[in-house]
Amino acid sequence: MILFKQMTVIGVGLMGGSLAIAAKRAGMVKTVVGYSKRRGDMYKAISMGVLDRCCLTLPRAVEEADLVVLATPVGTFEPLAKAMSGYLKKGAIVTDVGSVKGDLVSRIEKHIPDHAMFVGGHPMVGLQKSGVSSALPNFFDHSTLILTPTAKTDPAATRKVAQLWKGVGAKVVEMDPHKHDQIMSVVSHLPHFLAYASMELFNHSRAAQNALPYAAGGLRDFTRIAKSSPEMWHDIFRLNKESLFAALDSYQAILESFKKAIITAKPREESRSQYEGEGQAHGGDELLKILTRAKALREKLD
Amino acid sequence: MILFKQMTVIGVGLMGGSLAIAAKRAGMVKTVVGYSKRRGDMYKAISMGVLDRCCLTLPRAVEEADLVVLATPVGTFEPLAKAMSGYLKKGAIVTDVGSVKGDLVSRIEKHIPDHAMFVGGHPMVGLQKSGVSSALPNFFDHSTLILTPTAKTDPAATRKVAQLWKGVGAKVVEMDPHKHDQIMSVVSHLPHFLAYASMELFNHSRAAQNALPYAAGGLRDFTRIAKSSPEMWHDIFRLNKESLFAALDSYQAILESFKKAIITAKPREESRSQYEGEGQAHGGDELLKILTRAKALREKLD
Repeated sequence: MILFKQMTVIGVGLMGGSLAIAAKRAGMVKTVVGYSKRRGDMYKAISMGVLDRCCLTLPRAVEEADLVVLATPVGTFEPLAKAMSGYLKKGAIVTDVGSVKGDLVSRIEKHIPDHAMFVGGHPMVGLQKSGVSSALPNFFDHSTLILTPTAKTDPAATRKVAQLWKGVGAKVVEMDPHKHDQIMSVVSHLPHFLAYASMELFNHSRAAQNALPYAAGGLRDFTRIAKSSPEMWHDIFRLNKESLFAALDSYQAILESFKKAIITAKPREESRSQYEGEGQAHGGDELLKILTRAKALREKLD
Repeated sequence: MILFKQMTVIGVGLMGGSLAIAAKRAGMVKTVVGYSKRRGDMYKAISMGVLDRCCLTLPRAVEEADLVVLATPVGTFEPLAKAMSGYLKKGAIVTDVGSVKGDLVSRIEKHIPDHAMFVGGHPMVGLQKSGVSSALPNFFDHSTLILTPTAKTDPAATRKVAQLWKGVGAKVVEMDPHKHDQIMSVVSHLPHFLAYASMELFNHSRAAQNALPYAAGGLRDFTRIAKSSPEMWHDIFRLNKESLFAALDSYQAILESFKKAIITAKPREESRSQYEGEGQAHGGDELLKILTRAKALREKLD
């Protein structure tokens, strides 16, 4: 069923490109138009069959759109909303795929004219690859899509955007924009911050850099997310810094108590009783408790 | 060529088991004997063909060994060395596969009788799996093996242990025991500490735990190493805490400057000039520089 006659994707990368192919293939959009300041991406997307056509200016790209999807780094959403404001047609819905919501949602809403509607959206998918050439029609299969309607959001628009995402394979959840940012700061933004910081440690210290050839698979796993787009994460960190720093404060308190547990740790009971014949219990060892419950929780994530 | 007539592996897990199969298959050992306080592991290893036989006491296990390999958690090495001290035969070489060297090497050396020799060793392989059932003959292929001979170490013993590791596919490097610990603290121990702390954050805070269902692949990658053995890491953190805490101090300084870069970050030039027509340069943006060089270095790790 056609949900939107014309869908315009602003930003033609992995996310926008995948949504374009998936929505087209599911028969939910008739025409997909693309707009990007990187013209090469648009031409590639057309040759791949990801876009039906592209426009060289933002007004042209949005003026006939029933749905506009912001799929650029989140830092561009406010200026984009402002710039397209005078060109959106009556009944047009604007949505986004950004990782930051919170206050940003109302700052975008301010620019959307009364005859159009905004619905915030965020597909929970990893983006260690990037670029339209990695776009896939099943990219959103089994993913979770968070919509962040506010008091100002039209419920019919929310339902239509939800239908689109369900149609490309996502499970849709609704959430307050600020709660969204708190959740993301813990499960995504803080880990990215810590992984980038790990690589920065190697960039910063010559001693650390000399140690790098001895890195095994563990460090590679731990820092894999630092391969994500610097532009994208620049914007996410800048726009969600309050929640990020709150999560970082909690994390640093954990580091302190973890450190204390290491300082006070004793040789494990089993090694002592086994090899030295001493029977005293070290069952209260906080370090072993932390590590054991961390491992147990991590096993559940698989 | 037979290097050691009898090799005894203390601790029959992934590491000890893999060395046993690999050395046997390469024809470098005639008989592999195992010893473990977990009898089930020994019986499984025998039924898998990993061990030729096992012993139920440590003295019996080491008394005829030409090579004894300590493959238990590092916290057990000192008591083990002390306990086997009176039973090692003339010319026996003792080595280990532990992740901590430093002072521990001389504390082990103290227990080795004059007629035997100790050579510290550490194979750089990831251990997110564990247990002898995961043991593989090609486990050490293309890995790096660090030997940490001291002034007290017999050069002929070092050469023989190096030959064994080369024979199972590892590249052998020699290094000062304290330098080894500094390197490991940066490329391995700190990342493990931070990953375990990440899971502890979720265990500690109910709000964080409620966010966990929204975790994507990024958090899974970032915390994969927290699936490693709690007993093993208890001992590593406890025995290498000085180097670990020094690395943590450097990391926390990075977190502070990274945080400052986020606080002072401005909207990116390209978004402003593109969508608002402002031309002022933000080329000095420290945040974008940190993220860009972090990504570049991480790409090189693949």
